[in-house]
Amino acid sequence: MTRATPITSARNPLLKEIRRALSKGTLTEDGLCVAETFHLLEEALGSGLETPTVVAAESVCEKVERQIGHLRGTRLITVTDAVYREISATEAAQGVLALVRPARWTLEQILRARALVVVLDGVQDPGNAGAITRAAEAFGATGMLWLKGTASPWNAKTLRASAGSLFRLPLIDSLEAAAVRTALIQHRLAAYTTVPRGGLALHSADLTSPCALIIGSEGRGLSVAMRGAGQDLHIPTAGVESLNASIAAAVVLYEASRQRALK
Amino acid sequence: MTRATPITSARNPLLKEIRRALSKGTLTEDGLCVAETFHLLEEALGSGLETPTVVAAESVCEKVERQIGHLRGTRLITVTDAVYREISATEAAQGVLALVRPARWTLEQILRARALVVVLDGVQDPGNAGAITRAAEAFGATGMLWLKGTASPWNAKTLRASAGSLFRLPLIDSLEAAAVRTALIQHRLAAYTTVPRGGLALHSADLTSPCALIIGSEGRGLSVAMRGAGQDLHIPTAGVESLNASIAAAVVLYEASRQRALK
Repeated sequence: MTRATPITSARNPLLKEIRRALSKGTLTEDGLCVAETFHLLEEALGSGLETPTVVAAESVCEKVERQIGHLRGTRLITVTDAVYREISATEAAQGVLALVRPARWTLEQILRARALVVVLDGVQDPGNAGAITRAAEAFGATGMLWLKGTASPWNAKTLRASAGSLFRLPLIDSLEAAAVRTALIQHRLAAYTTVPRGGLALHSADLTSPCALIIGSEGRGLSVAMRGAGQDLHIPTAGVESLNASIAAAVVLYEASRQRALK
Repeated sequence: MTRATPITSARNPLLKEIRRALSKGTLTEDGLCVAETFHLLEEALGSGLETPTVVAAESVCEKVERQIGHLRGTRLITVTDAVYREISATEAAQGVLALVRPARWTLEQILRARALVVVLDGVQDPGNAGAITRAAEAFGATGMLWLKGTASPWNAKTLRASAGSLFRLPLIDSLEAAAVRTALIQHRLAAYTTVPRGGLALHSADLTSPCALIIGSEGRGLSVAMRGAGQDLHIPTAGVESLNASIAAAVVLYEASRQRALK
């Protein structure tokens, strides 16, 4: 780590760019993701991803220095607490954020042998998209494909809900539906789409073969471009109209992991 | 339904009481739960629970009248849109709320034969508590016991996240831990507590016998009063430190429902 560099104005170009990325929920112009909170800083550092810059508010600067003290190639920038609050995305800001370079993956790396791939097709709620990512890592998914029209993986809320899984699980975002459909066929993955009712009951589906689980939007289901891309699959339930999107995805992923552990 | 009665002032005692209940996330003094949105109105009417009063903003009054038109014993009160916004709990208010009398249940009704009971021990986040309720109904739980220190089931956020399951699933709230421990033993339920690691792996637990699933708080786990009340159970996962509380609960409930369907 190089020595802490103080920045005193929120109009500094780097801080302005961070604020813009945070408020838009996108990567910075340099392709870096903005990870706020001590927890995400820890997850970023633990993931081994390139973390060129950490910004800390004065009041937590020493704590941040202790956390990143051993790292080479990370520049620590300090700002006043007032400047930090100006750039932060959260009301209860902890005073620390890291710029993290997401890993780059190819379709071939994700659709590999014994694939268990989660395809997000228009999941709008960042909390759901992040929670699905966390469940995907937990239940042994080999990676995720995020289609255009889905929440950004690098949105502050998505990152927080993923609890760091976004730094570890192979993923590609902003994909075209047509490219993904072709890739699933080429790599001979069985594709499943979760629906409230109809199709196969979850426990009768064989999820031990290479497969993709396609999750549609919370309100409208699958996009037109993805209709027919997989076999319908429902989770047997009683009483309710449907399950929350992240809970449905987690249950299917758990079932896949259970079946694969038995095999 | 009796004819729509207009109220013009937000200082009307009934409206003041509704606003107080909404902002505190509790029942009204008459023991009624305030259910906002058209979806919850529909769920309340469909549940058959007593719904003595519906409040509608002028701009949606006709739509509300159509929805409740056939009901006896429900009084429709209309207010101006401005007055509605003053009492509402949500920024994007739809202009409709219903006062609903929750059903009253006894421990004996919930801890009945083939029980699958969810005990919430300090779950703080209303979104999690509501989502667990929705999953509990979906996967055939016979009821829920909410211990003191848990989010209120009648909070607007809990209700919304439950998507109406709170109107249908038998539950008792504000329970003392000691009373629940005694009842679980008396009714010979096997009790399980979900933990991030250690104890039984989920798929090795026999969840076909009458059992209770105890869910601790998101941050601190089980309360002191509930420690040792059940056998530890973990969901086998890779990579992540833990799962979101509602996702963990839903996965255990799914596993119980899967095992019970096979039997």
